[in-house]
Amino acid sequence: MILIHTPSAKEVAAYLKLFRAALPQHRFISLDEMTQPEAVQYVITWGPPPALFARLPKLEAVFALGAGVDKLLARDDLAAGVPIYRLLDGGMALQMSEYVRFGVLSYQRHMDVYRRQQAAGVWKMLAPKLPAEVRVGVLGLGEIGSAVALALAADGYRVSGWSRSAKQVAGIRCLHGDDGLAELLAGSEVLACVLPSTPQTQGLLNEQRLAALPPGAMLINAGRGDLLDEDALLALLDSGHLRCAQLDVFASEPLPHGHRLWQHPAVTVTPHIAAITLREEAVRQIAANLERLATGDAAQGQVLRERGY
Amino acid sequence: MILIHTPSAKEVAAYLKLFRAALPQHRFISLDEMTQPEAVQYVITWGPPPALFARLPKLEAVFALGAGVDKLLARDDLAAGVPIYRLLDGGMALQMSEYVRFGVLSYQRHMDVYRRQQAAGVWKMLAPKLPAEVRVGVLGLGEIGSAVALALAADGYRVSGWSRSAKQVAGIRCLHGDDGLAELLAGSEVLACVLPSTPQTQGLLNEQRLAALPPGAMLINAGRGDLLDEDALLALLDSGHLRCAQLDVFASEPLPHGHRLWQHPAVTVTPHIAAITLREEAVRQIAANLERLATGDAAQGQVLRERGY
Repeated sequence: MILIHTPSAKEVAAYLKLFRAALPQHRFISLDEMTQPEAVQYVITWGPPPALFARLPKLEAVFALGAGVDKLLARDDLAAGVPIYRLLDGGMALQMSEYVRFGVLSYQRHMDVYRRQQAAGVWKMLAPKLPAEVRVGVLGLGEIGSAVALALAADGYRVSGWSRSAKQVAGIRCLHGDDGLAELLAGSEVLACVLPSTPQTQGLLNEQRLAALPPGAMLINAGRGDLLDEDALLALLDSGHLRCAQLDVFASEPLPHGHRLWQHPAVTVTPHIAAITLREEAVRQIAANLERLATGDAAQGQVLRERGY
Repeated sequence: MILIHTPSAKEVAAYLKLFRAALPQHRFISLDEMTQPEAVQYVITWGPPPALFARLPKLEAVFALGAGVDKLLARDDLAAGVPIYRLLDGGMALQMSEYVRFGVLSYQRHMDVYRRQQAAGVWKMLAPKLPAEVRVGVLGLGEIGSAVALALAADGYRVSGWSRSAKQVAGIRCLHGDDGLAELLAGSEVLACVLPSTPQTQGLLNEQRLAALPPGAMLINAGRGDLLDEDALLALLDSGHLRCAQLDVFASEPLPHGHRLWQHPAVTVTPHIAAITLREEAVRQIAANLERLATGDAAQGQVLRERGY
């Protein structure tokens, strides 16, 4: 028996329909339909309620309906021996590339400045920049970060990428480790973060690192909210050291009412939509993994707990 | 003797320096240095003062520092027999593609809606759209319009193009004439206009044609301001038939103080920067044309007055 749960009943209904059509030989249920917790073998979920997993003694695996699994890993009701599988890309690399491209294009073409000029009724041209004149740093070189870096490079931007441990992406200047991070920050007019949240990345974008960006730089955060010191960002925007920010993720989500980020003229706030799980693609990937497990094959996208993704 | 004039003395100085370096055998002057109007053979210009050309009895040709020449053609001091040469692309196709891409990406990813939600402090996700789910119509299929259409098609959008007379662009569905325009409008969630201003295109985007766009559509105008009925646009934005607009050109420029377009929440105003003449490229093209004329060859980019560009 396979339990499907997300915070939206409408979404659960949509997933139940898709999974039942894709794998008629399996029995998929919602939380409301769960009368025998001991019969639940797998859970497909994001945002499961507290203590859910403690009620499932025969749980064999969890399939996350997303690429980020930090919240699942932080739970104390999920035994370490139960494997977690996350979505691999699932159309998310394309969406993330679009989201970052929007920010970089906005920066290159001064659209953030024109937006502020418009609010003030000011008609003033700024000297145009070519893509090759804009240096972009991408934090994170996993499947999503690599795709983002390659998409920006194809647009003509000068792209460097960074990851904690050394990685190679053809055509992209790849840096790693602490020294690599310092080099990347100093040379990035736009810093685009798509890192996952792990014990190693939390708090990475602190005041000192944000201040290491060149004057007039832009921050795009589409990774996780807890990577960024929001107060430090606001202070650097207010001082004018940073020009603008495009933020999709926040320390607390939804972004609380009255938070300064909502109203800051240099900040674009989006409600965690940079890369939304595409339902059909998620079903395709998880169904394929369920079939692999049924035939004794290894499922794809298994999370390494010590790595955090 | 070759006269260089634009409304900016700083810009004239920059052009004088570049042209003198590129073609030391020619004599380039500013308007201040013009003591013998009858010695002026060529004028390189945008925004020349009224009646300037009437003072130049030996004028052989005018080189426009831009792609659009509607204002030059509308003058009564420039004899019909004096050829006008305009810039061909000059990096403008890339810039225009970027400008339109920004608008289309904004529409596809609901960035305009998120911007309005941010102003209201609203956190609400919208269902993501893939590029292939967005139909874009490009008005104008000259060198710039074709480049815009091809760039958008490469991004995965469903692109159609329109021109007054039949044209072919490989890989793009090309429509033409009145029937083609009606078909294009009905099927374009984003309408991107890069047409020149000619007697045939002025007023093209009137109330009836804007109303023919599907509900919730977006208008991008990077062609010329006199193509668009701004009052009709505002009425259709207010009624909710159109979702948003990104405008670079206006009936009156600079956009007058207090004009409703400045403050409308669904409108992005930019100060005629979609495709700015790149100085080095302009010098390269015009210098090459001057050399062609010196050796008796045909110069490139000659404007056909009856066509308007």
